Amino acid sequence: MVEPLLPAEWQRGPRYGGPYTFARVPAGRDLQGVDVAIIGVPMDMAVMYRSGARFGPRAIRNASGQLRPHALRADEIEEPYASLRVIDYGDIEVFPGYIEKSLEVIEETVEEVLSAGVFPLVLGGDHSTTLPLLRAGAKRHGRLSLVHFDAHPDFWPQPADHPVHHGTVFRIALEEGLIDPAASVQIGIRGSLSAGIVGEARAAGFNVITADELARDGVAKALASVHLRARGPVYVSLDVDCVDPAYAPGTGTPEIAGLTSREILALVRGLRGLDIVGFDVVEVAPAYDPAEITALLAANLVYEFLLLLAESRAPNAKMK
Amino acid sequence: MVEPLLPAEWQRGPRYGGPYTFARVPAGRDLQGVDVAIIGVPMDMAVMYRSGARFGPRAIRNASGQLRPHALRADEIEEPYASLRVIDYGDIEVFPGYIEKSLEVIEETVEEVLSAGVFPLVLGGDHSTTLPLLRAGAKRHGRLSLVHFDAHPDFWPQPADHPVHHGTVFRIALEEGLIDPAASVQIGIRGSLSAGIVGEARAAGFNVITADELARDGVAKALASVHLRARGPVYVSLDVDCVDPAYAPGTGTPEIAGLTSREILALVRGLRGLDIVGFDVVEVAPAYDPAEITALLAANLVYEFLLLLAESRAPNAKMK
Amino acid sequence: MVEPLLPAEWQRGPRYGGPYTFARVPAGRDLQGVDVAIIGVPMDMAVMYRSGARFGPRAIRNASGQLRPHALRADEIEEPYASLRVIDYGDIEVFPGYIEKSLEVIEETVEEVLSAGVFPLVLGGDHSTTLPLLRAGAKRHGRLSLVHFDAHPDFWPQPADHPVHHGTVFRIALEEGLIDPAASVQIGIRGSLSAGIVGEARAAGFNVITADELARDGVAKALASVHLRARGPVYVSLDVDCVDPAYAPGTGTPEIAGLTSREILALVRGLRGLDIVGFDVVEVAPAYDPAEITALLAANLVYEFLLLLAESRAPNAKMK
Amino acid sequence: MVEPLLPAEWQRGPRYGGPYTFARVPAGRDLQGVDVAIIGVPMDMAVMYRSGARFGPRAIRNASGQLRPHALRADEIEEPYASLRVIDYGDIEVFPGYIEKSLEVIEETVEEVLSAGVFPLVLGGDHSTTLPLLRAGAKRHGRLSLVHFDAHPDFWPQPADHPVHHGTVFRIALEEGLIDPAASVQIGIRGSLSAGIVGEARAAGFNVITADELARDGVAKALASVHLRARGPVYVSLDVDCVDPAYAPGTGTPEIAGLTSREILALVRGLRGLDIVGFDVVEVAPAYDPAEITALLAANLVYEFLLLLAESRAPNAKMK
Amino acid sequence: MVEPLLPAEWQRGPRYGGPYTFARVPAGRDLQGVDVAIIGVPMDMAVMYRSGARFGPRAIRNASGQLRPHALRADEIEEPYASLRVIDYGDIEVFPGYIEKSLEVIEETVEEVLSAGVFPLVLGGDHSTTLPLLRAGAKRHGRLSLVHFDAHPDFWPQPADHPVHHGTVFRIALEEGLIDPAASVQIGIRGSLSAGIVGEARAAGFNVITADELARDGVAKALASVHLRARGPVYVSLDVDCVDPAYAPGTGTPEIAGLTSREILALVRGLRGLDIVGFDVVEVAPAYDPAEITALLAANLVYEFLLLLAESRAPNAKMK
Amino acid sequence: MVEPLLPAEWQRGPRYGGPYTFARVPAGRDLQGVDVAIIGVPMDMAVMYRSGARFGPRAIRNASGQLRPHALRADEIEEPYASLRVIDYGDIEVFPGYIEKSLEVIEETVEEVLSAGVFPLVLGGDHSTTLPLLRAGAKRHGRLSLVHFDAHPDFWPQPADHPVHHGTVFRIALEEGLIDPAASVQIGIRGSLSAGIVGEARAAGFNVITADELARDGVAKALASVHLRARGPVYVSLDVDCVDPAYAPGTGTPEIAGLTSREILALVRGLRGLDIVGFDVVEVAPAYDPAEITALLAANLVYEFLLLLAESRAPNAKMK
Repeated sequence: MVEPLLPAEWQRGPRYGGPYTFARVPAGRDLQGVDVAIIGVPMDMAVMYRSGARFGPRAIRNASGQLRPHALRADEIEEPYASLRVIDYGDIEVFPGYIEKSLEVIEETVEEVLSAGVFPLVLGGDHSTTLPLLRAGAKRHGRLSLVHFDAHPDFWPQPADHPVHHGTVFRIALEEGLIDPAASVQIGIRGSLSAGIVGEARAAGFNVITADELARDGVAKALASVHLRARGPVYVSLDVDCVDPAYAPGTGTPEIAGLTSREILALVRGLRGLDIVGFDVVEVAPAYDPAEITALLAANLVYEFLLLLAESRAPNAKMK
Repeated sequence: MVEPLLPAEWQRGPRYGGPYTFARVPAGRDLQGVDVAIIGVPMDMAVMYRSGARFGPRAIRNASGQLRPHALRADEIEEPYASLRVIDYGDIEVFPGYIEKSLEVIEETVEEVLSAGVFPLVLGGDHSTTLPLLRAGAKRHGRLSLVHFDAHPDFWPQPADHPVHHGTVFRIALEEGLIDPAASVQIGIRGSLSAGIVGEARAAGFNVITADELARDGVAKALASVHLRARGPVYVSLDVDCVDPAYAPGTGTPEIAGLTSREILALVRGLRGLDIVGFDVVEVAPAYDPAEITALLAANLVYEFLLLLAESRAPNAKMK
Repeated sequence: MVEPLLPAEWQRGPRYGGPYTFARVPAGRDLQGVDVAIIGVPMDMAVMYRSGARFGPRAIRNASGQLRPHALRADEIEEPYASLRVIDYGDIEVFPGYIEKSLEVIEETVEEVLSAGVFPLVLGGDHSTTLPLLRAGAKRHGRLSLVHFDAHPDFWPQPADHPVHHGTVFRIALEEGLIDPAASVQIGIRGSLSAGIVGEARAAGFNVITADELARDGVAKALASVHLRARGPVYVSLDVDCVDPAYAPGTGTPEIAGLTSREILALVRGLRGLDIVGFDVVEVAPAYDPAEITALLAANLVYEFLLLLAESRAPNAKMK
Repeated sequence: MVEPLLPAEWQRGPRYGGPYTFARVPAGRDLQGVDVAIIGVPMDMAVMYRSGARFGPRAIRNASGQLRPHALRADEIEEPYASLRVIDYGDIEVFPGYIEKSLEVIEETVEEVLSAGVFPLVLGGDHSTTLPLLRAGAKRHGRLSLVHFDAHPDFWPQPADHPVHHGTVFRIALEEGLIDPAASVQIGIRGSLSAGIVGEARAAGFNVITADELARDGVAKALASVHLRARGPVYVSLDVDCVDPAYAPGTGTPEIAGLTSREILALVRGLRGLDIVGFDVVEVAPAYDPAEITALLAANLVYEFLLLLAESRAPNAKMK
Repeated sequence: MVEPLLPAEWQRGPRYGGPYTFARVPAGRDLQGVDVAIIGVPMDMAVMYRSGARFGPRAIRNASGQLRPHALRADEIEEPYASLRVIDYGDIEVFPGYIEKSLEVIEETVEEVLSAGVFPLVLGGDHSTTLPLLRAGAKRHGRLSLVHFDAHPDFWPQPADHPVHHGTVFRIALEEGLIDPAASVQIGIRGSLSAGIVGEARAAGFNVITADELARDGVAKALASVHLRARGPVYVSLDVDCVDPAYAPGTGTPEIAGLTSREILALVRGLRGLDIVGFDVVEVAPAYDPAEITALLAANLVYEFLLLLAESRAPNAKMK
Repeated sequence: MVEPLLPAEWQRGPRYGGPYTFARVPAGRDLQGVDVAIIGVPMDMAVMYRSGARFGPRAIRNASGQLRPHALRADEIEEPYASLRVIDYGDIEVFPGYIEKSLEVIEETVEEVLSAGVFPLVLGGDHSTTLPLLRAGAKRHGRLSLVHFDAHPDFWPQPADHPVHHGTVFRIALEEGLIDPAASVQIGIRGSLSAGIVGEARAAGFNVITADELARDGVAKALASVHLRARGPVYVSLDVDCVDPAYAPGTGTPEIAGLTSREILALVRGLRGLDIVGFDVVEVAPAYDPAEITALLAANLVYEFLLLLAESRAPNAKMK
């Protein structure tokens, strides 16, 4: 069993107090007996508009102070942290200005986590965070199904001499064979994007559900599509800009007319039953989040995801 | 008739000007001939996360500068402040750090107001504000029906040596026999709460309508439930965190995926016909409300409530 | 063809960079061969609550840095700025404290723009911005149909010695015969308004669709009403306070329970097919927009409107 | 004696509570027996850069909640509000967009106040606030000495068709013979101003002490100059932008390298002994004052000025 | 030796990353071999104006991410954390609304820390934080010399039924015999305080150096006074409001014309040579600190204090 | 002569209006006949703490709207933009995540500017901005004297696999022989830095004047040192964090107890007489500048620098 690094008595104090980790789970890097490792990637060097997501992990941990260690709904286990051994692994060191070197280090770290049979739950960072996670995940599990919540398809072709940025991630992942587009869904796409680029994503096999289509057809239909397509190991990547700026202003490239908090919550909860092997929440940029509601949303989505993992009992069994 | 303490000429100036009261109603403590007293409770000592609600009354008064003294809908009286004699009673003195002493003072003040046949419309303060109001109300009217809008049931058991905080209020009210759970409804419950605690509230007799249930079943069904259950004198307590943080970021313990402003407006308007004897809006914390939209929402809900009282003509008759 | 004042190489840099214009279109005042002139009116002297809209044009231009020059939907042209020759005309000089002198200057400038067969797309400024635009428009095109998105009818009678303010604009326009009320629609009306004033607007012939009615009956019905009524040249005025403060906090007189971003987007898109001769977005007040989401919304609505103009091919033909 | 309009019991509650006036002095417009009337002018229509000073009086009143009714220094009277009968007169109505009409109304009101032998202590508003105060003051007292704290001389020539703005005030005052330049001092001038304009002010007779000169020569020397020149009735106008933006960010046209809070405090305290007949604090723009330190500074300067008046015993005697 | 609870590899990552403690020192409650325990007291229930200091410890820890583990000056040891064994003890649980119960718990905890020979370095919390620290300190060391940096003497008489608030702390400490006024100095006093209260503090024996006196006479003279008076064990309490709001806006009761950052830094550095047995930084209220400069100042003052302790080699020897 | 790209009539409108450039100078990349090119470098990928400086050029241009085109002091030319032909060159494209590629592009661009005999006045960007400027400058002018205002020496050794970050710039510049340490001065150094690193800088020949030394010895002495050492072509690099966070909160790595705005202004003005060949202002991070005072300070320092260049008549002659 994992030894809590934070003394038990700290669980007694006010939730806004104490040297802190996500939801006050123990801090540590000993993966022995651990089910889930919450890992920060404080990186924003690949963002194309507003920087600041390097403070995303810190903001999400801060906001997680508002979480209680309980589960409200009847179909959930009462105490998620009782049945699920969660640690806060801390942040991976990245090297501002050196994106490729940084991605290597992230990939190596996550490989270790996966090798130990531990589920990586990652707090980004800009969306380039996801690329090394897909690389490590595919190395261990083979080609992945992708469930991708985002305002943008992140499917731009790579510029010759600066190929990686937060908008080229899934094109690269496709080209490297990390994800199976026919088993993948992108949800929430909108804004002053090129119809061409969305057309290319669709031509490549992705099921792209735009924000307009989601608003028109509803969450249930989108979830049906996810469950119909996803097969084998599934990776879930949640760019907080999938949500409307009213609900999530604190992000690098907000787009109007996005999802509501109810919709994204229902979508995350609706992932139950998939064989999920990795999860990230990215693009929380606290400098643009004056009332801290974006970080609060992200922290709650992590919590909902933990409930989902707790329910499925032995999540790390899935990663063998 | 009440003598306006604020000279009539101040009603002429810009709405953002003048030494001010809620919506520029007269200031005063002479209850003679008054229908409604707007009373501030600048208290936040019992909040368990973010403090700051002590400035709630000030923020709501400030935001009320945006209100015009008119009523838009055909079914409303044209000039609410003409048919309803409203005063701003000012704030009740509380003693930071001394919750029980503070609750006593609030209770005594509200008892006086009720004794004069005046309707108390209270601007909190954290949710412990409501406890002395229920005590005073029950003393005058007997056991109350409760209509409670909130993200949280505030039904935690009382810790032995610090029993009162903003999360134990309705457990205490139940134990003291102030409210009749079978005639009471809680609306908007959600978040990382214990299913056990909600179960206990339901077992005690409360009709708990979670935010998920409200989103699924709609406002009309919730209101039907309120009108079915509430009997005799009704007390309405509105914790602004029942609303989603996108609409009401400025509060002590925000929870994602809450009500929209349309829904809370429809819910308040739907209270018409009940025999309401007291109303509060609590947990507005302006330090977390950078665009001041939470205070604006609260001020408008007070205004809507005043319209509702004006319509029912002689609200203080109800309090005999 | 229009000579770009901003060198082409600036289009290559980061979207957040460069001396800038709306969406990096060329800056200039040479109207030769131009289809659309984006014109700022940095004026807030006629606002009755919060000032600050004088920085509206600047904030919208800043936020437009987040726009890409693409169009997402299949029914839109791929590159709006390719088929539509758009310039940023800069701002019209106004004289704080001298509203009538200022309105004259605005009117003269817009007359010149219209005379050159160029479509004026105006960034306000408070809502008094619209009055000289209607004057110039009616002078050129005759009586206009008005499509007016707003929380307020702006139909107050004029005070004797200070007749123009942002709440009297459409009463004045009616009295001057600039608009045809029977062909006009007001959408989004709500708040502590006088039922009398709305009644007067309706009695004058306007189709007033309140925010409550829109929420109940939906966007499609409102658009049907617009298309049924509007005839001949149509002027579209969009006060950003038609939207809920959650989506658009940065405005002078916010009103709760307004439109969502999805709704206003659908409404603007639904204007396709009308013979539109002028468009404004007004009342963006950036000092109250800490996360800059109001300006982002406004910038996107301008972009959607440009798509709509691009689709209709030769927009300046309409202004003959 | 003045009847307090705010009940005495409100003085007991928390300083951040209650329907409020400046420092909780009584609200009222009955000038009988009053020594000082604190008057708000919520006007910002004449500002040439950032608007927002219309909320200056409100912000200063809000910040005055932090004042205690005591005096620290031995040379001051212990309880200023005991020896000095101060009321909060509320705000004067102004008409946004109609500067000249607005100035007339302000002038009339202040004339009434002066006629009653009451000292007008004015909370602006932009600096055009001062012009009608000088007009009313000169009408009563004859040509005034001016002590003017500001980053700008506000001495620009008047544009032909929009003569009054916040930068032409003292040129107009000079031309109208309201002030005696030889008896007047301007302190704190700096920034990207024209040397020519400062030269013109000096040529007209003003003693202009730039911020650089103040920093080099010290407060004592500046005060010596004030006491040497000022004769007869003195009007003191304090534009909060005389102070450095670090100490007073919330203003319309901040200039770097201004006075420190210590210096402005020493300057105001150093006015003791002058025959002061009017005082204003202008250009507080709360929308640019996120930590509310500008309003706090202004409120304290008003308090210091009240101490100074209290010390001189019978301030209204001076106005005979 | 103390076992670091935070793995050493976390010291490698970016300073803004990782589950964090003050300056990334190890977290823990094992006092064995520890020199200094940094202890948070997340309490703001006793503040009389703005609440929010409960988030002070969190904000100071967050800001400490900007500290490097080095020492700049020649007279300092190069690596403070090498020669001084520092842990982050976490926060003490307090009970909002129950000030006296809370003070008991704080006192007990600090007694344990002192008993282990560990130096308590406390992050408040409002100023009532200091009372139990003085109680515990005096119990162990006997009557203490007090060096107190503050805008306020906190020397008000205790109200009968709510005796403890952040303004009565040092009166209580005196009455309980915890501090020796003749050996104590208060520095930075100013604002709308009662001359009477300062007179009483002086009459009781305190050396009160007002902010005006400090500005006039300089830091060196104040320090000379401290070194002349302080004898035996010294307790240092630093209310961040001693500093001017320009440098420290984020506090509960800011007062203008306070110390500069240079002055408070020089004052803290000038404490070298005293036999200091406890230190606190209180009244950091992050909700009023939009640019986070107050927390940064506090974090740096803690760091400077650690340098001072490191220099004196064996700080816990002093506590025998 | 340079053709203004912005039409002359835009100079007439309000200073807060218009598609804008620094202080409304013409936009363009035609270097013919130009004296000074203001160049933005919107880069923050090399910052080690808070990112956000990529919006520095935009914020400084926005704030420059508050500048008037005048000069206050007698020893300055009346109209700087008359005697000095200044253009706004726009921003150089950089590639987030690819620092070395980005530095190459910057260097090439600045070489072109220098080749045209135009003075490069650069708005950063994080401090890595300066490295390619020094490279280009040294290539043209030979080894440079450096006048460096900063809280940090930026003299850290280069990590092996990520050598360039904003803290290694001047070590690299020294190693590449771009600057002559014996002719160079660093002013403002402070904070939790390593004495070792400062020692190394001094050992290398730099004259390091710490913030403490500046405070103790004054600006005049520091300037004397600059004028004594600097010889031949001088490059001036001004990191805005040299200033105290009270005056410049909006920066990536603020350090307390820095320079005041008066001091930095006096230091920049004191550079008169040096043979300056390049100037940059870096590390303005607007996301941490809520009242926009940092950008205002930076804009004014650029303006002061332009005055200095204008005074020296033919600045580009110096670059032959």
